[in-house]
Amino acid sequence: MKKPSIHTVLSPALLHLYDVSNTIVVVIDVLRATSTIATALYNGAKEVIPVDSVERCIQLGRELQCITAGERDGQVADGLQYGNSSFEYPEEFISGKTLVLTTTNGTKLLHMALSRGAQEIVTGSFLNLSAVCDHLLDKKKDVILGCAAWKDKPNMEDTLLAGAVISRIKHAFEINCDASHMAENLYNLSKPDLFEFMKQNDASHYHRLMNFGLERDIRHCLTEDLANILPDFENGKLFIRK
Amino acid sequence: MKKPSIHTVLSPALLHLYDVSNTIVVVIDVLRATSTIATALYNGAKEVIPVDSVERCIQLGRELQCITAGERDGQVADGLQYGNSSFEYPEEFISGKTLVLTTTNGTKLLHMALSRGAQEIVTGSFLNLSAVCDHLLDKKKDVILGCAAWKDKPNMEDTLLAGAVISRIKHAFEINCDASHMAENLYNLSKPDLFEFMKQNDASHYHRLMNFGLERDIRHCLTEDLANILPDFENGKLFIRK
Repeated sequence: MKKPSIHTVLSPALLHLYDVSNTIVVVIDVLRATSTIATALYNGAKEVIPVDSVERCIQLGRELQCITAGERDGQVADGLQYGNSSFEYPEEFISGKTLVLTTTNGTKLLHMALSRGAQEIVTGSFLNLSAVCDHLLDKKKDVILGCAAWKDKPNMEDTLLAGAVISRIKHAFEINCDASHMAENLYNLSKPDLFEFMKQNDASHYHRLMNFGLERDIRHCLTEDLANILPDFENGKLFIRK
Repeated sequence: MKKPSIHTVLSPALLHLYDVSNTIVVVIDVLRATSTIATALYNGAKEVIPVDSVERCIQLGRELQCITAGERDGQVADGLQYGNSSFEYPEEFISGKTLVLTTTNGTKLLHMALSRGAQEIVTGSFLNLSAVCDHLLDKKKDVILGCAAWKDKPNMEDTLLAGAVISRIKHAFEINCDASHMAENLYNLSKPDLFEFMKQNDASHYHRLMNFGLERDIRHCLTEDLANILPDFENGKLFIRK
């Protein structure tokens, strides 16, 4: 039997080149949207609603009477209540609640994957790496690893996560995709110390967040399986499928 | 004084994200357009005219009474005289002549760079790596390393060449570009044996050309400085500036 395929899409601006229909799309936005999403759901949030603007976040927060969150330039955005740090969403705070989260790169890619006919959309981060891999191995469907990137420019951390997924599941998949091989090689290089690798390469997002004093956040987001659940995207919401 | 910048563009479909004006754009299409261009000019060709279709190639060949070349699926295209192999262009054949070469990915990127206002456009390959690096070090201008890729999908060999350039000239440049760091890391990994690295990673273009029996061509195109000149692109033609 032919193995299912894996393709890595290094930027949302390249997604149109790939056949998304009948695939599982893993949306990856390691610093920090998909890490925050994994954490909130792991800690018991009922659901996370990703939206693409602060205005929409405020509006939805008012309509649903729920928590609003999002940052611009490393600060909680004006009019919102919380930021993008996993540490803001402990169980005692988030359990049972709905979180409306504004992210630019990640939300855009979620909606693009939907409109291009993905069969299933999940989100991936180092925090839920095993859950994502187990799901993909279980489903045996074609996979698109979609990096949210930074304003459409490929970034290091999302590429590394794609590589981490590939290195774990490639035995069960056919890979005819140079971007996937590139991602896997980079991940293998960085594996001994992801944080150090980001630092040595002065990865742009690393640099940006370090300037905001967010080293603890970066280290957290680069740690495997701290929030090991699978966020599924359906009807505009992310939740853990029962 | 502020150092000039380097950015790596992994696909023509991402070029619009970068400010190309006032930069030197290095167009990279290792397998095999920019390798063939370097070889033909090194061996004394008067000029190489890159065109994007077989039809245009035939038409221009007739008008200018010159050599026409180009392949589709690893074979000389119908109506053209020669292929994309460096070995077809020894000095005794090509010296003093004009070559019209049809390439899809490379030609497209050359014209995109031009229309976006690049100050200078040159072509790069492993065969003329040192000439490219020396030029960039000499000019001290902002640089865009533009990978021609394969139908807009990032590919291994063009990324490796970008990395090779970066590893040689980075001391004189500012690099705030994750794609550049990715390319340099991949190049450093592959440096001990580029051919073996392409093989181990089953790079898509490696695979395609090996299926056409072109191992000798691939090995040639991955060898440094065998045709160490600088092709400059102006008025639709590539030539060595005197």
